[in-house]
Amino acid sequence: MRKLYRLPRSSKFESIMNKPYFRHLFAPELKSPVFVEGLPGFGNVGKIAAGLLIDFAQAKLFAELYSPYFPDYVIVDKEGICRPPRYEFYASSTGKNHFIILTGDTQPSLEDLVAHYETCGEILDFVGKYGCRLLVTIGGVPTPEPKGEIYVAATSKKLASNIAEKGAATYGMGRIIGATGLLLGLAKIRGLKGLCLLGATTGLKADREAAFSVFQFFMKTLGTDVKT
Amino acid sequence: MRKLYRLPRSSKFESIMNKPYFRHLFAPELKSPVFVEGLPGFGNVGKIAAGLLIDFAQAKLFAELYSPYFPDYVIVDKEGICRPPRYEFYASSTGKNHFIILTGDTQPSLEDLVAHYETCGEILDFVGKYGCRLLVTIGGVPTPEPKGEIYVAATSKKLASNIAEKGAATYGMGRIIGATGLLLGLAKIRGLKGLCLLGATTGLKADREAAFSVFQFFMKTLGTDVKT
Amino acid sequence: MRKLYRLPRSSKFESIMNKPYFRHLFAPELKSPVFVEGLPGFGNVGKIAAGLLIDFAQAKLFAELYSPYFPDYVIVDKEGICRPPRYEFYASSTGKNHFIILTGDTQPSLEDLVAHYETCGEILDFVGKYGCRLLVTIGGVPTPEPKGEIYVAATSKKLASNIAEKGAATYGMGRIIGATGLLLGLAKIRGLKGLCLLGATTGLKADREAAFSVFQFFMKTLGTDVKT
Amino acid sequence: MRKLYRLPRSSKFESIMNKPYFRHLFAPELKSPVFVEGLPGFGNVGKIAAGLLIDFAQAKLFAELYSPYFPDYVIVDKEGICRPPRYEFYASSTGKNHFIILTGDTQPSLEDLVAHYETCGEILDFVGKYGCRLLVTIGGVPTPEPKGEIYVAATSKKLASNIAEKGAATYGMGRIIGATGLLLGLAKIRGLKGLCLLGATTGLKADREAAFSVFQFFMKTLGTDVKT
Repeated sequence: MRKLYRLPRSSKFESIMNKPYFRHLFAPELKSPVFVEGLPGFGNVGKIAAGLLIDFAQAKLFAELYSPYFPDYVIVDKEGICRPPRYEFYASSTGKNHFIILTGDTQPSLEDLVAHYETCGEILDFVGKYGCRLLVTIGGVPTPEPKGEIYVAATSKKLASNIAEKGAATYGMGRIIGATGLLLGLAKIRGLKGLCLLGATTGLKADREAAFSVFQFFMKTLGTDVKT
Repeated sequence: MRKLYRLPRSSKFESIMNKPYFRHLFAPELKSPVFVEGLPGFGNVGKIAAGLLIDFAQAKLFAELYSPYFPDYVIVDKEGICRPPRYEFYASSTGKNHFIILTGDTQPSLEDLVAHYETCGEILDFVGKYGCRLLVTIGGVPTPEPKGEIYVAATSKKLASNIAEKGAATYGMGRIIGATGLLLGLAKIRGLKGLCLLGATTGLKADREAAFSVFQFFMKTLGTDVKT
Repeated sequence: MRKLYRLPRSSKFESIMNKPYFRHLFAPELKSPVFVEGLPGFGNVGKIAAGLLIDFAQAKLFAELYSPYFPDYVIVDKEGICRPPRYEFYASSTGKNHFIILTGDTQPSLEDLVAHYETCGEILDFVGKYGCRLLVTIGGVPTPEPKGEIYVAATSKKLASNIAEKGAATYGMGRIIGATGLLLGLAKIRGLKGLCLLGATTGLKADREAAFSVFQFFMKTLGTDVKT
Repeated sequence: MRKLYRLPRSSKFESIMNKPYFRHLFAPELKSPVFVEGLPGFGNVGKIAAGLLIDFAQAKLFAELYSPYFPDYVIVDKEGICRPPRYEFYASSTGKNHFIILTGDTQPSLEDLVAHYETCGEILDFVGKYGCRLLVTIGGVPTPEPKGEIYVAATSKKLASNIAEKGAATYGMGRIIGATGLLLGLAKIRGLKGLCLLGATTGLKADREAAFSVFQFFMKTLGTDVKT
């Protein structure tokens, strides 16, 4: 037998995976970016909308988040290459508004409350270092017969009504679960302003229409004067 | 696009949410306050009774407790404003007895034992700083046909029989679950005196009658001489 | 209203209950004691046998273990006095063999593996300080038609066969769950000698007969020469 | 009663079992070993194949891993000797390729995500100290009518296609669960090269045939030139 495997000398067998781990690819230069979150959820509205924004804003992947709260499998692509599930952070500095966009393969299990709180806290810490000035979370809201409605909730009444004026309904007297809700809630405790855009969806399958409606509304809203 | 969002410079992206977090609104001046707990539970007796006491004693919200053990959603009010679920601490110094009153949106999951113990421990630490001299927990006890009965359990025989003399039945040979029981048990280990008032309720719906009975009994009891 | 509650000034609002907590009542003087465990389990054989030994050996309660891994309720006695569930350590120095006997209200949930390992580790640390020289765990083993059989497993072949010679069957090719098994397993890793006595029981109800058989065997075995 | 138990003076009642614990038996001298994992799983393919390799390579047990994430029972052998469930590390330096081979009794529960991530991280740290240059994980893949197929996934396209050329199918667009997948995924994040060999199995019973196929393929592959 011959040894022909070529391994880098510096193969890093280092940290133990018992806490979330950020892996930086490059350090983007961003000016007071808006942080946008779109993760898997009802109708995959958030994830699809985030993908549309990533394309539109020519955003580049600059960081990955791996976490022991994510599923304990690896994802294998069609060429047989595997990687653990992860969150991805994209940066865009091409337009007037700079963006950090979060999307990913998964979310922590809804039953693991601490995982959800800790992960959202880590993410707010992370984007806080880039001076984010506004948080926008995007998700779906289950509706029997969706007709493209957009709902808004926010960290303040002023911000909520301001966004509602642009054509969204106020999402009142309810709950918003997962990262889409919790990021906003934790942002509020930290004194950060944020809003949540929810697209009406049956939630039964990936809903590109609902996601596109939210994306359009997002672009329209960010292009005009929003009083916070 | 124009940047018109106004964010405070000092937006605090700080702590990671992996442990309970107290947020102080102001520091009340309290003299040996009685600590009263009324959280959601059977028939919502504890929460409703705590609300009645907050109104009666003109208590003011002075601290909030956020916790990764609480549900991973945000609560949205009718104006679209969101916040994470929380515990609330109210202070009253208007009457002869000063009070710290704990109420809230939720309790940790009954399955998460450590969350329950840790949360109760944090609360006892917190109210301990204010020199609390007595702990009173309020809850409901499921009963097929409730007739306004009040049950009492306590950290000592003397205290239990003293309260029973005022018209409560001794809650003997049983268990008291959740914060209503555990706060009392942990208080006992720490050498603090406490008692638990349980209102009979079917437990099927919010039971304002049972809560009012307990509230009345609480007012009567604290207005007279209780030997501990 | 008058303030008549008498609270000790030094009311200790101290530690947060997020780890097991030993509360010492007194420090027993023990000479190389044998550590005996009998906790709730199949047919309650272990707990009942431990109780018989406590009575026989006139053992005194000297320490309590409270833990956030125990159930989140309090136990109320017939006089209305409440306390959290706990483990109890009794010391006996009346006979030729000194004993530390562990019994209790409960065990951590079988699903919480870390709770089981950590609790057993804490207990071994605790009794280790008293110089324990042998560990004897007692439990029940579910059997369709029990006839008073006693089974033995141990940390070494010599010890197992030595005990088997006294009239126990070897418990071979199986598993022993909960503290009865795990204490023994962890003791072995730490280099401590130990054995497990299992009484055959249907396991359907508290089995005083099986417990008495094990107790008798225990007394007989410890009264004669056991090669370890 | 006489005290005849002989306990080592140095009985180590030391560490609390709340984290994984490596117990070294001896320190093998290994030159850039290949790390091979075969743990219980579908059809027990990984564990059986690892056993075949241990026999073939005359590998010696040099370390054990105990963990609070493993089941909370002890395993009793036919002589009544008990031990906690564990992972075992074997070292072989007899052939041209040196090996560290991991096998064991169990895996952490699939629901305990953090346990899986942390355990895999600890293992990579451990074998990293021995300068492992390649990771090979072995498992089964459920297939309705298995015909001895071998699938491969890897940390790079080059490595995956290189192995595929030797007669394995590319395992594309799927997931690999448990240690077999996660070790590979975490290795990739750390910059280590690795591959996974999966044997087709119904997964219903221990599948010695599938395991032998993978073992044969493993031997053939490691005996020839593999471009990484």
